[in-house]
Amino acid sequence: MTTPRTIEFYFDFASPYGYFGSLLVEEVAARHGCAVIWRPILLGAVFKVTGMSAMMHQPLRGAYLRRDVARFAGLLEVPLTMPEVMPVNGIAAARAYYWLEAANPARAKALAAAVYHAHWGEGRDVGPAAVVAEIGGRLGLDAAALLDGMQDPAIKARLRHETETAIARGVFGAPFFFVGNEPFWGADRLTHLERWLSTGGW
Amino acid sequence: MTTPRTIEFYFDFASPYGYFGSLLVEEVAARHGCAVIWRPILLGAVFKVTGMSAMMHQPLRGAYLRRDVARFAGLLEVPLTMPEVMPVNGIAAARAYYWLEAANPARAKALAAAVYHAHWGEGRDVGPAAVVAEIGGRLGLDAAALLDGMQDPAIKARLRHETETAIARGVFGAPFFFVGNEPFWGADRLTHLERWLSTGGW
Repeated sequence: MTTPRTIEFYFDFASPYGYFGSLLVEEVAARHGCAVIWRPILLGAVFKVTGMSAMMHQPLRGAYLRRDVARFAGLLEVPLTMPEVMPVNGIAAARAYYWLEAANPARAKALAAAVYHAHWGEGRDVGPAAVVAEIGGRLGLDAAALLDGMQDPAIKARLRHETETAIARGVFGAPFFFVGNEPFWGADRLTHLERWLSTGGW
Repeated sequence: MTTPRTIEFYFDFASPYGYFGSLLVEEVAARHGCAVIWRPILLGAVFKVTGMSAMMHQPLRGAYLRRDVARFAGLLEVPLTMPEVMPVNGIAAARAYYWLEAANPARAKALAAAVYHAHWGEGRDVGPAAVVAEIGGRLGLDAAALLDGMQDPAIKARLRHETETAIARGVFGAPFFFVGNEPFWGADRLTHLERWLSTGGW
């Protein structure tokens, strides 16, 4: 019996390509009998290390990003509404994720998916903790407990730790995937990742 | 009778993804009855506008780029040798391209392909004009005439003009493709470009 393989999926709620990655990665994993570990991080902290900024606010690149994101969504046939607030502050949603994950990883993924949908599918500002709690409430979660959980110092430290770990592993953007130590950056590298799983590498 | 569709292919010899693009774009075009116009430009001038630098010299991104490029080459089953000189100065090769193109676009493409192969397939420094002329000579071109052509003021002005035109059209990296005014950035967007050609857009 072999150990099940795992895909680690690093993302920030502010990244539209992270949204696409979140909609694709579980299907890729299922085709290969893999588990997926979701790891929200804060790209702002990553960009301090790399000296980068959010692509959508860079000269020339920002205009292209809007076009590419709309086209990519059309290709995948997934909902897309350009949010008014970009980049959104994903800290509350990321903390809520880790708080939920401790007890129930599937529930944490469901919240992350719902937050992504609210932000990139519906264009909502999912920055405020109250919005994240409301989204959780609609999933049947206890919104008040979720709000408390986001303020837990251990959870705050956990998010910092995960972001620092990501940087130490070489993560510089989102989505960023690992199969073991093999890194794949971008939703468009899931085709390479899947080939990697099929062949065991080359 | 419809007008034949055209793919415009902007690239810099310093870009490994431009190399992959050069190996893929003509096949994509052939499947859809399209012509390809090759347009070497100088990314250094582009980066002055965007405030970017070559990815291979950025923190974290550089290490990933080397891994991704090697893996991408393996997937495409094309030769790859990491050059000692990166980023290479593509100005001589780009000038040689435009000088040849005026008389014979197919010959210019053949030179560009041979320069890309020498640089990314064999790891050679293709920056010096003498190296470009030697590569041309092995293709049966007149190496001395090619060296003269690279010094033609009209050719120098042409390369500046093409780079400025690219920036004005929103090009911020390489490879960068256009179908009409629809922009596609990256060798990994050729799948989107091909779908665009198949469907007429969405």
